[in-house]
Amino acid sequence: MEEKNVAVVGAGLVGSLLAVLLAKKGMNVDVFERRPDLRKAKAIGGRSINLALSNRGFKALELAGFADEIKSIAIPMYGRKMHDIEGNLTYQPYGKEDEAIYSVSRGQLNQKLMNLADDYKNIRYRFDHACEGIELDKNEIHFKNTSTNSLEKYNYQQIFGTDGAFSAVRGSLQKTPMFNYAQEYLPHGYKELHFPANEDGTHCFDKNCLHIWPRGEFMLIALPNLDGSFTVTLFFPMKGETSFESLDTEEKVVDFFEKTFPDTLPYLPNLTKDFFENPTSTLVTIRCNPWNFEDKVLLLGDASHAVVPFYGQGLNAGMEDCTILMDLMENYKGKPEDFLATYSEKRVADGNAIADLALYNYIEMRDLAGDEDFLLRKKIERKFSDMYPNKWMPLYSQVTFSHIPYSEALAAGNKQRKIMDEVMKMEDIHDVWDEPKVIEKILSLVE
Amino acid sequence: MEEKNVAVVGAGLVGSLLAVLLAKKGMNVDVFERRPDLRKAKAIGGRSINLALSNRGFKALELAGFADEIKSIAIPMYGRKMHDIEGNLTYQPYGKEDEAIYSVSRGQLNQKLMNLADDYKNIRYRFDHACEGIELDKNEIHFKNTSTNSLEKYNYQQIFGTDGAFSAVRGSLQKTPMFNYAQEYLPHGYKELHFPANEDGTHCFDKNCLHIWPRGEFMLIALPNLDGSFTVTLFFPMKGETSFESLDTEEKVVDFFEKTFPDTLPYLPNLTKDFFENPTSTLVTIRCNPWNFEDKVLLLGDASHAVVPFYGQGLNAGMEDCTILMDLMENYKGKPEDFLATYSEKRVADGNAIADLALYNYIEMRDLAGDEDFLLRKKIERKFSDMYPNKWMPLYSQVTFSHIPYSEALAAGNKQRKIMDEVMKMEDIHDVWDEPKVIEKILSLVE
Repeated sequence: MEEKNVAVVGAGLVGSLLAVLLAKKGMNVDVFERRPDLRKAKAIGGRSINLALSNRGFKALELAGFADEIKSIAIPMYGRKMHDIEGNLTYQPYGKEDEAIYSVSRGQLNQKLMNLADDYKNIRYRFDHACEGIELDKNEIHFKNTSTNSLEKYNYQQIFGTDGAFSAVRGSLQKTPMFNYAQEYLPHGYKELHFPANEDGTHCFDKNCLHIWPRGEFMLIALPNLDGSFTVTLFFPMKGETSFESLDTEEKVVDFFEKTFPDTLPYLPNLTKDFFENPTSTLVTIRCNPWNFEDKVLLLGDASHAVVPFYGQGLNAGMEDCTILMDLMENYKGKPEDFLATYSEKRVADGNAIADLALYNYIEMRDLAGDEDFLLRKKIERKFSDMYPNKWMPLYSQVTFSHIPYSEALAAGNKQRKIMDEVMKMEDIHDVWDEPKVIEKILSLVE
Repeated sequence: MEEKNVAVVGAGLVGSLLAVLLAKKGMNVDVFERRPDLRKAKAIGGRSINLALSNRGFKALELAGFADEIKSIAIPMYGRKMHDIEGNLTYQPYGKEDEAIYSVSRGQLNQKLMNLADDYKNIRYRFDHACEGIELDKNEIHFKNTSTNSLEKYNYQQIFGTDGAFSAVRGSLQKTPMFNYAQEYLPHGYKELHFPANEDGTHCFDKNCLHIWPRGEFMLIALPNLDGSFTVTLFFPMKGETSFESLDTEEKVVDFFEKTFPDTLPYLPNLTKDFFENPTSTLVTIRCNPWNFEDKVLLLGDASHAVVPFYGQGLNAGMEDCTILMDLMENYKGKPEDFLATYSEKRVADGNAIADLALYNYIEMRDLAGDEDFLLRKKIERKFSDMYPNKWMPLYSQVTFSHIPYSEALAAGNKQRKIMDEVMKMEDIHDVWDEPKVIEKILSLVE
């Protein structure tokens, strides 16, 4: 795969990382991006959930040599802190003591990756190039150069589409026979709000947690920023009795927050301004298959598998795409023309699995995270897992802290859920959960 | 809804029928069609499965006043005739004595509908107009006029998208927020073959049946034409050991047909020519939701719900869309701006149901139609249904001969299947199936 001229369409997080990994293989990489260079443009806020980087993402960053650099702009979160309606807090660790997910700003991370990519002479960024599709028989990409307003056409030996959930590259693949595709919106959307830093620059809540206000049909979450602030996101029905549509006056918004999230109000000085000025964004799941077109085009990241943000794995999955692609390049023994198809066959099931896991986790976060039965389940699971780590790795840990393929984690998680269903049927389980018979029961059910 | 200027995009079967129904309401209807007038163009064969019109289709044709006219160019098929590998025949009636589905050629039907539409002064056909999308905020359709090669733009009060499975109208809706969409291909494709008429103009097999050669992973079917010929279709894996890909020489094709469909060979004089010259077509299911954009655009027919052809309901479902739309226009009491959304909400579940039914029926046709257990099930079901017609209408009859919404038929069918699963577990059911206890068992299980 050496000495090739390739294009990466989309200079987001996955595109910039992929460019470096391909450049390290000796390829000449042109990275096209629809928008201007974000390092020169003004930051556009109000629209991006903070990202939670975890082990899969860091593995890819390590491969590029960037892991430490990125950790320096991230804040570790060791667990969830749930806020109930009276302001009582419940803490639930994500994993073992030193295991954490890392809050990082999308913009900062992207800038950092671009700066690091600039060190490679064989990477060239071309901003203001909006992809308008690919002529697949010629392997020719069409761009609208938005600074000159002209149409440009380029040929490459291979084209990597990392242009996100609404990928123009994928749009061209979608018109080919046998290309399966689905876009599915949740009836919920989200809006970004903000807890500013305290006057002394500290955080208003514990900064080493992901904060959740689970409220059944909806929830608020907060992730820490380096500057002492939190990025706050309300996940909420688009329509209906209590929804973005129904909260249509400042009074209604303040009233709703007073009743529903009272402990947040002191930290939301710009609540109504943010609520009405920030956009309401949608939550989409995108699946497709295959992810390649012959040996010419490959989709990675959100372009091939956009997921809802509730497992914090969207970016991690996209970065893992890069690790797996590089790994396959090292070890591939098949026909060169089948390489991209082999990658796709290997990886599609994992894209579908993380999409399913993320959809499920929304229910868990907004509805179950405050539920006693659910918390007991987690406690029993953790106890068993601590005693028999080789017999039970909690699903969350498999997804977040391991490199087990998502599809295998999902299957293992389904097995575990069935076992825990049985355990929770034991008499007086809330009283006897710490007794040896519970552990024995699980032992008898685990293979 | 009177005195309106509306556009119908796509002059296929559903588009032409819809144009007439809208014209009958007094609207001025412009019908745009990508292709030239098919009444003037040469017939293009080798690509369209004959259609099976049934009660839902005829109901819409009656509303337009065309039912008798169309029946005159159709051949009734009263049941399935299964051909096993030795050439033994099994017959299974579709419904009661006079109940039939009607084989009709897509091209002939389309021409007839266009001729009938020509009688309406307020319908205007505009051929050679390829829709390139809709500017939704202006309700403006963009067309490429393929005879002048120029771009044309038109505004209408309402736009009806009947432009088929690969709808350009839907393409514009797909880019709006919250539009759910899925295209899913079967791993099987199809190819059209041909049994010519006998020398005396008669049919080589019974013309009043749909003929099936079920072979497990694949099947051949034949539908009668007015001229004594049959349109024959091979449904077959695209790839794999026995597939369109693997049958790559004339010898292999002939050998395969000799071994697999021996009783067809005398009637396939052009087998290898047809096999290699006719295209291999794909089988796609398209689902989306909603089917409207505000009160401006509505998708009907395959544009909103393309299904695989195994229930013979694709066209019927599209024509039923028209009946239901007209019925709602007559009886609608809500706000005018909610009319199209109301139609969509009412109808989407039925589109999904017929898509599911059609996918299931492929398994039934190719795999079960030759299966003894399956045939016994059908026999018992029919006996019970004859005795207690108010307690049991077979699923096939609900779908094909009734106007019960598809979603209700699917739910009823699932209930029936569970009951028949119990019945088939009865001891020696193949020997005792005709005894009263079997009927009693079903009676005890039916609510």
